[in-house]
Amino acid sequence: MTTDAARHHGATPLPPGSTIGILGGGQLGRMLALAAARLGFKVHIYCPDAGGPAAQVADAELNAPYDNLKAVHAFASRCDVITYEFENIPSMSARTAATACPVRPRPKALDVAQDRVTEKTFIHDTAGVPVTGFRAVNNEFDAIRAARSLGLPSVLKTRRFGYDGKGQAIVKTESAIKTAYKELGGQDLILEAFVPFVREVSVVAARSVNGETASYPLIENVHKNHMLHTSVAPTRGDTGEAQKLAIKILEALDYIGVMATEFFQLEDGSLIVNEIAPRVHNSGHWTQDAGCVDQFELHIRAICGWPLGNVVPRHTVEMTNLVGTDVNDWQTIAKDPSAALHLYGKTDPRPGRKMGHVNRIKS
Amino acid sequence: MTTDAARHHGATPLPPGSTIGILGGGQLGRMLALAAARLGFKVHIYCPDAGGPAAQVADAELNAPYDNLKAVHAFASRCDVITYEFENIPSMSARTAATACPVRPRPKALDVAQDRVTEKTFIHDTAGVPVTGFRAVNNEFDAIRAARSLGLPSVLKTRRFGYDGKGQAIVKTESAIKTAYKELGGQDLILEAFVPFVREVSVVAARSVNGETASYPLIENVHKNHMLHTSVAPTRGDTGEAQKLAIKILEALDYIGVMATEFFQLEDGSLIVNEIAPRVHNSGHWTQDAGCVDQFELHIRAICGWPLGNVVPRHTVEMTNLVGTDVNDWQTIAKDPSAALHLYGKTDPRPGRKMGHVNRIKS
Repeated sequence: MTTDAARHHGATPLPPGSTIGILGGGQLGRMLALAAARLGFKVHIYCPDAGGPAAQVADAELNAPYDNLKAVHAFASRCDVITYEFENIPSMSARTAATACPVRPRPKALDVAQDRVTEKTFIHDTAGVPVTGFRAVNNEFDAIRAARSLGLPSVLKTRRFGYDGKGQAIVKTESAIKTAYKELGGQDLILEAFVPFVREVSVVAARSVNGETASYPLIENVHKNHMLHTSVAPTRGDTGEAQKLAIKILEALDYIGVMATEFFQLEDGSLIVNEIAPRVHNSGHWTQDAGCVDQFELHIRAICGWPLGNVVPRHTVEMTNLVGTDVNDWQTIAKDPSAALHLYGKTDPRPGRKMGHVNRIKS
Repeated sequence: MTTDAARHHGATPLPPGSTIGILGGGQLGRMLALAAARLGFKVHIYCPDAGGPAAQVADAELNAPYDNLKAVHAFASRCDVITYEFENIPSMSARTAATACPVRPRPKALDVAQDRVTEKTFIHDTAGVPVTGFRAVNNEFDAIRAARSLGLPSVLKTRRFGYDGKGQAIVKTESAIKTAYKELGGQDLILEAFVPFVREVSVVAARSVNGETASYPLIENVHKNHMLHTSVAPTRGDTGEAQKLAIKILEALDYIGVMATEFFQLEDGSLIVNEIAPRVHNSGHWTQDAGCVDQFELHIRAICGWPLGNVVPRHTVEMTNLVGTDVNDWQTIAKDPSAALHLYGKTDPRPGRKMGHVNRIKS
């Protein structure tokens, strides 16, 4: 037994008063910090810029670039456990932190999640979970060949650093592939088969230091301009199958913490993984007002070796993102008796910027 | 119309991103800061000692004695609104802060709540709400005379700075009065009639800048060693009458924010006010897991001129305080699917020290 979970099996949970270090300073770090505080933990934030959403509610912050290994090591030396709030933390930084204190999820989760080819290969070959057809693409001719194999339309994407629809193009013809290749080129790409899905769903699940797993029910997600717009849960459909697939991935990764698995669902109900996020996830924000342990507390419990607690929601909740100037509706939302408002402490409502979200209890 | 509420009637609510200053750095300040963060506010903490429960989750803290008027003024100058988390803030400090920015609740609430004679006189004479019989006591002979008028047993208390049963004694005989007087003497005292109550209940209610009021249902409280042990709400009994009395006091004080009113309930169901707390209150902690706006967010909404929102609980909740080494049960509590754990970031579980609480959803 050499896995992290195995090594920690039966280990003493991290007691209240311990210090949790978070790499990343955005809204996910903020909500993790708030949840950690409820359980009596102290939180330190590592991020490049001062005074961001997470640091506003943390006990301490260290500002340095993510790839400053000396700063990362110094930060980790003052913490009892390290986690991260976004998947583009350099994996070398996470490995450096791990020389000073436990890093959960393990840095390997970053390697897998940061590259779409590595991710899909791992999910399909190692975890044995269905993914969209894909081919790595290193030049324009690869792209054409991949399209002839996968069929058109298909989706050309950057392998790394894509999010919210950035770094991707749906291509319907071979000449469109050439145009898209020029726009996205100069970096490693992937061509993915277009999936004729009827809806997008996700599962937010966790695995603890001692191997305990827990999963919220199936979540239905609606995107707008390639960005998550609403999530509703529990939604109709077979939660069990999606949970089973998500937990297969968690176990294959020897994962510790909360992970989101996004699926395409086909007309026959079958599920194909679109991508995973090795962190708390926007599609899990509804859990904050569901009357059970929320995804932020669940992540803290998992990485601290606590019992995962109750993840069965008492309510059906609909989460709506407040993007850019949507946030200006806060006065109306504050009046709505079904609404819980969550704002991120960001000052400038730029277009496309996630400023907050609102959870509405439906039943 | 010269009251604070009247002057602000129709005023623009304080927008997210504004800075809320809290005088006091304990667990109530911590939970206020967490609630304020959810709504996108920044929080600054003023308290004598560094790194306390509230400062751990705040954007900034200033450490100075509460009676350092220069420091209080400097602190208030950097905030958009000031509030307080305990009632023993010197009223002169609150008035000093008010020269730099709005202080809510108004400093007058401190004057009233800090002195049991002023408090009971105000509640009875100005608000027209029943209180226990009482007499101010300036010497041993006053005490005897008061006892002959109010009857024995009665309760001798310090007029100021009493809490959790400290600074009081139940006296059953005139000679016991003399003994108790010697123990408590050297300060202004009050003798209160002993009320043969059948239970202790409280109401947590709020009044906003624009005069809107809101109240949670009736709460039943059980004390242990003179300290709150459990609160359950909603409890049986006529919530309406208790709410009506609490709101009469809020309005008589031209109060802004959350206030707790503690009542003795007699066998015939009638209610007598025991005391008020011009702040969020331990008997309102259950609201955090009741599926509505909780008392901390309600206070922030009230002092910022927001709509008060929904205070109708979706669940019946029982709150139990974790005092001293009770907190060592955190591992057991973390496993309980009905329990939500709230810890305060205090390191030393001294006897009688409130370390956290647990809310259990009963239905």
